[in-house]
Amino acid sequence: MKNNGPLLDYISKYIQLTQIEKEEFVSILTQTSVPRRSYLVKPGDTVNHIYYVLKGCLKAYYQDEMGNKHILQFAVEDWWITDFDAMHHKAPAALYIEAIEDSSVIGIDMRSLEILFVRIPKFERFFRILYTKAFIALRKRVMSSLQKSCADRYLEFCGKYPGIEKRVTNYHIANYLGVTAESLSRIRKELF
Amino acid sequence: MKNNGPLLDYISKYIQLTQIEKEEFVSILTQTSVPRRSYLVKPGDTVNHIYYVLKGCLKAYYQDEMGNKHILQFAVEDWWITDFDAMHHKAPAALYIEAIEDSSVIGIDMRSLEILFVRIPKFERFFRILYTKAFIALRKRVMSSLQKSCADRYLEFCGKYPGIEKRVTNYHIANYLGVTAESLSRIRKELF
Repeated sequence: MKNNGPLLDYISKYIQLTQIEKEEFVSILTQTSVPRRSYLVKPGDTVNHIYYVLKGCLKAYYQDEMGNKHILQFAVEDWWITDFDAMHHKAPAALYIEAIEDSSVIGIDMRSLEILFVRIPKFERFFRILYTKAFIALRKRVMSSLQKSCADRYLEFCGKYPGIEKRVTNYHIANYLGVTAESLSRIRKELF
Repeated sequence: MKNNGPLLDYISKYIQLTQIEKEEFVSILTQTSVPRRSYLVKPGDTVNHIYYVLKGCLKAYYQDEMGNKHILQFAVEDWWITDFDAMHHKAPAALYIEAIEDSSVIGIDMRSLEILFVRIPKFERFFRILYTKAFIALRKRVMSSLQKSCADRYLEFCGKYPGIEKRVTNYHIANYLGVTAESLSRIRKELF
């Protein structure tokens, strides 16, 4: 069953849409279930959608030639995820996006969104604010990785993704932070 | 002397402005000279502007309690720089933005820009595209720092900031990449 309510509520924090505009927006959305351990995106895929998480938890990661995984991002309810680089540059996906829990996402088709930008410029505003916030949050993460201790970065992570430390494994969080699982275990013991 | 030409040329790649719209935009710009080794922003400052670099080269860095500097960003001609986090959250600056060469920047006042967004929504489009590109470039940097070798990251840096390796010191680049100057020297010798 379609449930666009949470996404429309999210958007209404930033722009006010009329009923007709809402209907036009909803017409370009698709809802997808992503069972635990299955993939929303795989390397080589064509990526035409940006995904809003309705339910569940997903991770975006890169797997190098040695088979090592590097987690770039987690996404839980109310977060956005896709292979942004591939989508924007119309290049094949480089990332895996995999569900850690049974998940449900709403996909926005970028080609339809480009048309919507022209028809309803309020969406330019919404995505301008969304990308500005995403850019600033990512800069903060880069800044932290350059200068903060691992303990501080772990606490920042818990603040950024509240409750996620109970939903994903220690290994996942350590990978995201770029430390070993053993180091993270030690840090958690010292902190709590 | 005011020289808004390069910024207007830059913007015209993304949106088409009428003469009246250009004049309205230009009225919220201020041009500032930043002599080498002087500061555009210092920790504690109120940050109301985003800066477009007309000429020169600047670095944005954080200085930790031990006095160690951590370079977050360089900006040369046609790049943008500010303490985005402070500006967006109306918080005191945490970064230094210092000129590495005699520089000249155009500042856009954010409060005036917010008004312009309402009057001329094309600017929403321009900044939506600008922040999207900035977000994707920064994600690429995070991805590289997680999984690429230092040599690859150095080559990526040279591709991202063409010619900058001749304009800034080895120490600066090493600091930006998060490696020691000695490691970077060794890598450069192996590469070239």
